[in-house]
Parts: sequence; structure tokens; C-alpha cells
Amino acid sequence: MPIARGYAATDASKPLTPFTFERREPNADDVVIDIKFAGICHSDIHTVRNEWKNAVYPIVPGHEIAGIVSAVGANVTKFKVGDRVGVGCFVDSCVGCATRDVDNEHYMPGLVQTYNSVEADGKTATQGGYSDSIVVKEGYVLSIPDNLPLDASAPLLCAGITLYSPLAHWKAGPGKKVAIVGMGGLGHMGVKIGAAMGADITVLSQTLSKKEDGLKLGAKEYYATSDASTFEKLAGTFDLIICTAGVAIDWNAYLNLLKVDGSMVIVGAPEHAIPVHAFSLIPGRKSLSGSMIGSIKETQEMLDFCGKHNIVSEIEKINIQQVNEAYERVLKSDVRYRFVIDIASLAA
Amino acid sequence: MPIARGYAATDASKPLTPFTFERREPNADDVVIDIKFAGICHSDIHTVRNEWKNAVYPIVPGHEIAGIVSAVGANVTKFKVGDRVGVGCFVDSCVGCATRDVDNEHYMPGLVQTYNSVEADGKTATQGGYSDSIVVKEGYVLSIPDNLPLDASAPLLCAGITLYSPLAHWKAGPGKKVAIVGMGGLGHMGVKIGAAMGADITVLSQTLSKKEDGLKLGAKEYYATSDASTFEKLAGTFDLIICTAGVAIDWNAYLNLLKVDGSMVIVGAPEHAIPVHAFSLIPGRKSLSGSMIGSIKETQEMLDFCGKHNIVSEIEKINIQQVNEAYERVLKSDVRYRFVIDIASLAA
Repeated sequence: MPIARGYAATDASKPLTPFTFERREPNADDVVIDIKFAGICHSDIHTVRNEWKNAVYPIVPGHEIAGIVSAVGANVTKFKVGDRVGVGCFVDSCVGCATRDVDNEHYMPGLVQTYNSVEADGKTATQGGYSDSIVVKEGYVLSIPDNLPLDASAPLLCAGITLYSPLAHWKAGPGKKVAIVGMGGLGHMGVKIGAAMGADITVLSQTLSKKEDGLKLGAKEYYATSDASTFEKLAGTFDLIICTAGVAIDWNAYLNLLKVDGSMVIVGAPEHAIPVHAFSLIPGRKSLSGSMIGSIKETQEMLDFCGKHNIVSEIEKINIQQVNEAYERVLKSDVRYRFVIDIASLAA
Repeated sequence: MPIARGYAATDASKPLTPFTFERREPNADDVVIDIKFAGICHSDIHTVRNEWKNAVYPIVPGHEIAGIVSAVGANVTKFKVGDRVGVGCFVDSCVGCATRDVDNEHYMPGLVQTYNSVEADGKTATQGGYSDSIVVKEGYVLSIPDNLPLDASAPLLCAGITLYSPLAHWKAGPGKKVAIVGMGGLGHMGVKIGAAMGADITVLSQTLSKKEDGLKLGAKEYYATSDASTFEKLAGTFDLIICTAGVAIDWNAYLNLLKVDGSMVIVGAPEHAIPVHAFSLIPGRKSLSGSMIGSIKETQEMLDFCGKHNIVSEIEKINIQQVNEAYERVLKSDVRYRFVIDIASLAA
């Protein structure tokens, strides 16, 4: 069994610490990847701190993985040693399922998450990208376009697809007014991708502190949601609002910013139920919807789109020894805009 | 000014009583209608009892109007004396508005409701169909197909279009599994219309008391929501759920009955906010949406569709003197399935 080194959480209340573990033996359809970079997603923190009540320790987090292929199984046809590749939030799905829908595999019950999950063999715990290598079935490995830097591409695998998928599904493009709520790791990707799709992007952020960045990344307008006049000015404005803020907001006030037939899509889950007034939806045929990452097919489409438009994440690169400190900074929104762990630092 | 006789509410707490009033002078683009039948909609009760806090008395309710044209203005081209016509929930809209969308006029701010509203002249109170005549602009008059009985067609003007519009918009048809929540005045129309569109209809009702009717009207299946096993059996079943129940239900349990990309559409407004869990929407890209009646264009399309498929409401016809008693029975869901007032009884 291949040995991997990484950082793991061993308990909800303890910091991540160095951890050595066995990866599964590669099969004929597997790709072995030398991990070079791993993004830090807020979900990593939710999971290792057991805030979603499903943690099985030890957990090596990380589902924004970028690296180089170091070996391929005999049946692998799409990748060869040396290829630049990525792995996102899942590494297997319900392939044997009668109702399997390749465009929606990420919504199927048999999804195997990249960490804190169990492989298709029913016993091996999956472990994520805060580590130096991973073994993944060819069908769940993504190709990273040559023109994109590997480090800043890592966050595309979760943050990128999380925004790309709803923007594509709800047809953001020329003539569409789209609001991105929250200007963080997810939100800033929405600005870049949505603008590249040709949509007219407005950022709705608590304050104007990141306004200059937002406009530079492609937003046409930028408003502070702490200013009540924002909600008067923008009433009935948007075809689509994508909400990346995983906290309680004044939901009905945001729904009021939609046009007739507009949709507000939640990609960051708040802890408590969202109190929607029926009259926020009925007069205007509005929708409150959810969206979660994207299929492998759509993730590759997103990476190719980002390659074409030269889009990567804005990152702050750190050594893995700084991961616990980085978590604290994520919780304070003190990062512009995504932490990426340089896995080479493991050897330090 | 033409004199009309009808029944009006003069106060939130008093019964409806006979009321004589002036209709506005017909203009060149107006149609004058001898009202023959008026359906009783739950909204009539909400309005006259001031439950929506917008009542301006006296109010002659009624927005499910069927009658015969008795006169037409000089510029009217679509109707002639003797035509069988209907009037629904609104009698004017923001015709001068720059952003006017004829497919969505019913969602525009300038909508003039059939009663408890003010005409485009900015001063004349609109009064509804519990009366013997009405003056309506040609563009807001609908043609009732010759093969449909006038009495049972009246409820198509609100209940019919309220269900037709979301069924059409969310593409109910062959291969689509659609649930209708509630088997009342609205719900039974959804069963008939959805089945005629070719969708596979399931009724979700509190009990099985109307099961036989539901199956007869076109439903393939019928489940009691008071039985918890219904929610286990039907998890992940529906492409579309249309909720006609204007009361609090276990919303997240219903959202769990949707397939990936499914939508639950509210057409009956509950009093309190709907507590939606983000995880009821995110994993499955589901939507909670609202829908309200339909445009004039779509209402005519609905009437033509009903003509083609011989669809009308199941009604219990009453004399206008029974209206207050009928209201009490509506509140107890004691009607199969819509009360229609025979306006000829006014002369009794």
C-alpha cells in the first residue's frame, strides 16, 4: 500500500497535526497523483470540527487538489505520467445505480466524498488533499489547462465549480443581471466566472472594503448590504442572485431584489432554516433554489472555460504548518481570497 | 352610469348583503357583460374579512366571472353582443409601463384587480362578480369555448389558470411526475388539467376521503399526508409539486419528495413564513417557487385547452342568498369542489 504523509484532525477540538497513512493499492483504472497544492475550503473546517455531526476521525481534509500524475493503471487512457490534474469534492459515485445520471452524479446518493467518506469498497476511509499523494479512479480526475498556474487552480475544484454550475444552469450571460452575495473564496470566483460568461455582475457584500477588488475582478457594481438604501435601489433588478454567505441574512429582502421569474440560489448553507414568506415568491414567480458543486463532466467544462478565459482563484499560499492559523483567519474572513497549501512544505 | 345590483361586504365582521351600485360609463374599448355565474374563491373571503389588511369597503367580491356580452364599445373588435365571455382576477394593468411584458402583466405593479382595487382612472373602485353586470376593457375579457357550460367554466378564470400556469411553465407533460397538494377548488383543477397535459398526477391530501374523486378526475395515485409512510414511500419521486394548501405544512418533508432539479410551487399562500432548510434545496438543486394566476394571453390559452379537453370545474351551484353560508362551508373545506353563484337568483 502506498504511504502518504499529510495533516489530519484527530478530534473536533484539536488542531490538525502531521499524520502518516496508507493510501489504497492502485487498481488498473486508477491514477496516482503527487499532490502539489490543496485549497482550504470552509467545509474543511465544518467537517473537522464536526459541525455537520458526521466526522469520523482521523480526517485528512482537502478537496481542492492540484497535482501531477505519478503513475497510471493499465486501463487508464485519459492520463499519463506528468499530466497536470485536479481532484475535487468526490472520488466515486453510484456507478451501478439504475437511475444514474452522469450530468447529476454529484446529487446521487452513492457519492463518495474525497475525505470523511468511504471508498466504493465499503471499508477504506477516503482522505483528502492536505497530503502528498492520492489514488483516484480515472473517471474522477480532472485535467488542468496548461496555461493555468497549478497553485491558483486548486480552488477551482470546489469554489470554482460551486459558482460555475449555478451560473451555467441558470444561464448567466449577456443581458443577464446577476448578483453575487458575499465576496469571499466562493464569491470572488462567481465575479470572475460570471463576468467571463458575459453577465452583468453586481456584488452584494456587507461592506465596501473589497469594492476595488470586486470591480477589478469583473463586477460592474458593488453595494454594501449594511446600507438599507441598497435594498430600495436594487428592488426588482436581478435575474439571478447567488448567495455564497453561509449565514443568516434578511432572505425576503434579497428575494425582493429579483425580477419576475428570477431565482435566488443558495450555495453556502446557513445553519438555521430560511424563513421565506410566500408573498416573496408568488407575485413574480420567483424561486429560492440550492446548488452544490457540479458533475465531473461540468467540472471539466468549467476548467476548460477557466483555461480559455485565464481564470484562477486569487490565493494566499501558505505552508502546511500554518494550516491551523489559516483556519482561524478563514473564520474571520481574513483572506483574499483563498488559502492554498503548498504541499512541498510537508518536507520542510 | 349603468346601475348594477349585487352582494357586498360593508365591514370585515359582517355578512355580505344586497348592494346596488354604479358601474363606470362604458368607453369605446369596453365590453359590457351580463354576469350569469360567479365562482367563490377563498381569496374572496380573505379579502372581505380584511385578512390581507387591504380591504376598502364596500366590496363586491368575485373574480371568477362568466356571462354574456350585452353591449360593446365602438372600438371593440374581438367581441359582439351575445358572446360567452369570462373575466378573471384583473381588469387592467400597467399598459403604459416601459417594462411591460404581456406575458407577465399579472406580475407587474400596475395591476388593477377585479375588486377591491381602483380602475386606471385612479378613482373608481373596482367591484367584482357577485353582481349582475360589469364593464371591462376588451383586452381583459376572455372568450369561453362554446362546448363548455357557462356555470362550471366560471372557476376556470381563477382556480383554472392558477393551476394551468405553473403546470405549463414547469412543463408538466408526458413522463413528468407531478404531485398536487390539496384536493380542493384549486387542487381538483390541477388534477384535471395536469392529467390532460399528459403528466402522471399524484394527489397528496390530508386524508383519503376524496380519493375516489381524485382518481376519477385523472390522478394515477392518491396518498394521505396524515400517514407518515407516504413521505418515505414517495421520497425523490416528483419533478413538480404544486401546493394549493394555504396553510402550514411540513415543507421540508415535501421538498424531500422532489427529484433532482425538482420544483415545489406554492399557489396558496400560508400566513406564516416557510422555514426552508438549505439542505432541503442544495443537494438536488431543488427549488421552492411561487406562482400567481396567469396573463390574459395564458388565460385564453387555458380556456382553449379546457375547451379542447372538455375540462370545467366540479361545482355546487347556489343562490346568492346562500353566499354567507357558503363562505362558512369553504372554510370547513365542505364543498366539492367550487361554489358557483347563480346570478339569476339576484332577481328572486
